[in-house]
Amino acid sequence: MFKRYLPILTWLPHYHRRLLGADVLAGIIVTIMVIPQSLAYALLAGLPAVVGLYASILPQLLYTLLGTSRTLAVGPVAIIALMTGAALSSVAQPDTDAYLQAALVLSLLSGAILVMMGALRMGFFSNFLSHPVISGFLTASGILIAASQLGSILGVSSSGFTLIERVITLLPNLPQFNPYTFAIGTGTLVFLIAMRRYGKQTFSVLGLPAALTDLITKAGPVFAVVTTTFITWHWQLTEAGVEVVGAIPSGLPALSFPWADASLWRTLLIPALLISLVGFVESVSMGQMLAAKRRQRISPNQELIGLGAANLAAGVTSGMPVTGGLSRTVINYDAGAQTPAAGAFAALGIALITLSFTGWLYYLPIATLAATITVAILTLVDIPMLRQTWCYSRSDFSAMAVTILLTLVEGIEAGIVSGVTLSIALFLYRTSRPHSALVGRVPDTEHFRNTHRHNVETISHVALLRIDESLYFANARYLEDTVYNLVASHPELEHVVLICSAVNLIDASALESLDAINARLKDSNVKLHLSEVKGPVMDKLKKSDFLDALTGRVFLSTYAAWREFS
Amino acid sequence: MFKRYLPILTWLPHYHRRLLGADVLAGIIVTIMVIPQSLAYALLAGLPAVVGLYASILPQLLYTLLGTSRTLAVGPVAIIALMTGAALSSVAQPDTDAYLQAALVLSLLSGAILVMMGALRMGFFSNFLSHPVISGFLTASGILIAASQLGSILGVSSSGFTLIERVITLLPNLPQFNPYTFAIGTGTLVFLIAMRRYGKQTFSVLGLPAALTDLITKAGPVFAVVTTTFITWHWQLTEAGVEVVGAIPSGLPALSFPWADASLWRTLLIPALLISLVGFVESVSMGQMLAAKRRQRISPNQELIGLGAANLAAGVTSGMPVTGGLSRTVINYDAGAQTPAAGAFAALGIALITLSFTGWLYYLPIATLAATITVAILTLVDIPMLRQTWCYSRSDFSAMAVTILLTLVEGIEAGIVSGVTLSIALFLYRTSRPHSALVGRVPDTEHFRNTHRHNVETISHVALLRIDESLYFANARYLEDTVYNLVASHPELEHVVLICSAVNLIDASALESLDAINARLKDSNVKLHLSEVKGPVMDKLKKSDFLDALTGRVFLSTYAAWREFS
Repeated sequence: MFKRYLPILTWLPHYHRRLLGADVLAGIIVTIMVIPQSLAYALLAGLPAVVGLYASILPQLLYTLLGTSRTLAVGPVAIIALMTGAALSSVAQPDTDAYLQAALVLSLLSGAILVMMGALRMGFFSNFLSHPVISGFLTASGILIAASQLGSILGVSSSGFTLIERVITLLPNLPQFNPYTFAIGTGTLVFLIAMRRYGKQTFSVLGLPAALTDLITKAGPVFAVVTTTFITWHWQLTEAGVEVVGAIPSGLPALSFPWADASLWRTLLIPALLISLVGFVESVSMGQMLAAKRRQRISPNQELIGLGAANLAAGVTSGMPVTGGLSRTVINYDAGAQTPAAGAFAALGIALITLSFTGWLYYLPIATLAATITVAILTLVDIPMLRQTWCYSRSDFSAMAVTILLTLVEGIEAGIVSGVTLSIALFLYRTSRPHSALVGRVPDTEHFRNTHRHNVETISHVALLRIDESLYFANARYLEDTVYNLVASHPELEHVVLICSAVNLIDASALESLDAINARLKDSNVKLHLSEVKGPVMDKLKKSDFLDALTGRVFLSTYAAWREFS
Repeated sequence: MFKRYLPILTWLPHYHRRLLGADVLAGIIVTIMVIPQSLAYALLAGLPAVVGLYASILPQLLYTLLGTSRTLAVGPVAIIALMTGAALSSVAQPDTDAYLQAALVLSLLSGAILVMMGALRMGFFSNFLSHPVISGFLTASGILIAASQLGSILGVSSSGFTLIERVITLLPNLPQFNPYTFAIGTGTLVFLIAMRRYGKQTFSVLGLPAALTDLITKAGPVFAVVTTTFITWHWQLTEAGVEVVGAIPSGLPALSFPWADASLWRTLLIPALLISLVGFVESVSMGQMLAAKRRQRISPNQELIGLGAANLAAGVTSGMPVTGGLSRTVINYDAGAQTPAAGAFAALGIALITLSFTGWLYYLPIATLAATITVAILTLVDIPMLRQTWCYSRSDFSAMAVTILLTLVEGIEAGIVSGVTLSIALFLYRTSRPHSALVGRVPDTEHFRNTHRHNVETISHVALLRIDESLYFANARYLEDTVYNLVASHPELEHVVLICSAVNLIDASALESLDAINARLKDSNVKLHLSEVKGPVMDKLKKSDFLDALTGRVFLSTYAAWREFS
């Protein structure tokens, strides 16, 4: 009972020294690696860089207590940062107190939503984000985030939260580009891409052990941060117009509650809902994948509570909305984290930096951070997936295309909402015009297949009609039309057998239609039979009057009906 | 080609004298019968009584030209009038020019929506109004309309468009009730109920022929109108405070176009959409039922165009939104109408009355009209249906209950929208947690049934898993969980066969999950097989890489898999 709600109790009592060593090492690596990205994502959301550090401390500690994934690392992530920026800019100006307050309100709201969904066991909700929608959304977000960083890399200013806004605001400023910023930004970009693509093989050729090679390759961003910070400090490039992180207040954030007025809470409710859902999906997909690798399990409903608590913590410690991050979790996993304690050690590490060493970050160029984000995020862009989905299913492709297009043009919220709505609408449309087939017997077997696809035996006065869909309100009238047309075009028919092997549900509307079909066939002296009705469907039919009114019989198998009539 | 878009061409060329006689008689009967209700429904919408007459002329003529039902009578109907009133009162004060204008805008909008839906062949949209939602909506509307007439019957004023508003505004006025109005109202009510319940048997006892008995019973409202009008005129009860229809301008309506500003059109768009859909559903259900009785067919898409044209006509002839009405259609059908010409004759009859005889309606008491509406509408209230639906399906019942409750408390629009949304959500929820069953062989057959329900043979190292649902994004992860749990709890398994007889669709998300299941089972040395994959599903799988990666085989039948492994 306690273990279910405090998952820390499942691993802490068995904790021992060997685990401690591994976890502390992972914690140190994660601390160093995630500081640049934490700063970068705060900037991406239009917030001061230090907010990204604040949001990586208490939220991670609470997740350690309440989360079920052993390796998930919680903090600011790119997509959530972008969504946060879009939501906040609609209610306040960046660099104002109101903007900071709104970020806290947004964190608290998404925390509350997640905890509530967890308490109501609504983890299944994330299932409605279909694979094409998630995949399209990630691709579009990648493009969008990369575009948002382009200005910082080139050293010109741009703003906005859609691709068009970004491009429109970027173009007129292009002539004022700063050559030093440009050099740092593109230099870092080229270095990081080269590291990613050729790093491993280069170091292997040099004869380094695989684990070290891997670590060096991953440390690319840290190396870039240290180098460009040194260059900027040494030649005092700030005077030449290179933008840097600048002064960060040292010390831990104070506990505070954003006493904003009710209308702000209401306005941010829908964005908070979407941020919660998207964050949850990113986090759970990640957590499930890694848990599967180690044959562990995570509980989606408890994850909701863990992530919710993390966001509530962000909301009272001057943070921003957080979730289990793609890149920080991979770093943690690869660094050998064994238990959630690794996350706690990383949180303590970041707290230590925030407390005393923020001065070291003064000369860190924004362009370096922008390049770091861009390289990390471009892995989300999955163009081959577009072609694969197109080949497999036009309707899945259209959901994906709409999600990508609207995310780019109208923003993330519009993209996701339209993608989900379209997925559901297409599913409903498909089920509202079910496939049905007249079947016949495969000679010398008890098996029945489509008369148009297979060479099968039929009986002239009997129609064996297989309906390939659950019968419910959206296709009830379509079913009536199908049967009436069948009877009208085959005047010799005396029996119609509805094969229900694919009918998983008959709702009240469909029952009404079956009643109507039964009555109308009776007028034409045609008997209606059912076959292969599933247990749960039969149980429900028995509660209605339909079986009493049915002119024909209910056969256990289609073969039984065949024997009866042939 | 022409016949498809001008259905009048299918019957007019074959018209002959015998049909003419029947149609003219039906036209005369309908004219007399529908005048009281046309006046009443206009009042129900908060419009001058004469608007109801205007809306019964040109709209009906256009429907005669373009509609596919032989017997549908088009004009103002109770539910649409109530929805019209609710929509108009949110944009203008009753008894003002703006209110009248808004009614025309609403008619034109719903006309345009219907015609557009017809042109796009979107008749299937009405399928999403499930039977429980329609039935719940009709019941609640019946109660709501009856409540709205209570004030007029008692002779006290009340207003509002929800049950609570009606009751709250009615109660304080109760002491000022008018005894004459009360007498006329309740007198008519009791008379009409008695006619409906005992009329037929009483007149049969008197030895009258059945057809005449039927006609007399149906003429109850006309008799009530004539009698109470005479009484009110003779004793000049208007001076005692009895409200009457009063002076109606005689003459036909002039053609006009409501030049309202854009914001009004925008505001009325959603109400117009709902009015169109509800009107269409009422009309098509009615039309299909009667067409079936005479073995005729109607075309839902052409009906959209016919009803749309009728509403456009109402919008330019000082009318109000119209549709194929329940009671007026039944009157037309029972009076023996053979072709749409009967409707045209009724329209001409009403035009004649409007032109010259509106003076006769001066002393017609509002209370009489209210009683007429109430009796007609209470047939919509179907309480036994509530119990039946409860027994058959809790989720259908909940959709019905929510529709009724919200229609009564929040109004018709809220009721329908919530009912439809809930129906869809419940369907998606149900399909997101599909029923699945481990099956075994029914001894000595090729048939396989649930191991928990039937006494069947199984093989210990083979799991035959039947999934009773199409595989799509909402249940893709649930499928993964089901299979993983199955394998985890049966360590002896070497083969898992997914029986796809009920799988009508595998979308891109589910394909991704099947890929994941296949890979994970491979790690555990368990082979994944499929059986009874349907033709259309197999065609799509062949377009993906899944079948190449599949560790096992695709069997034509489950029996083939059984033979392979046993």
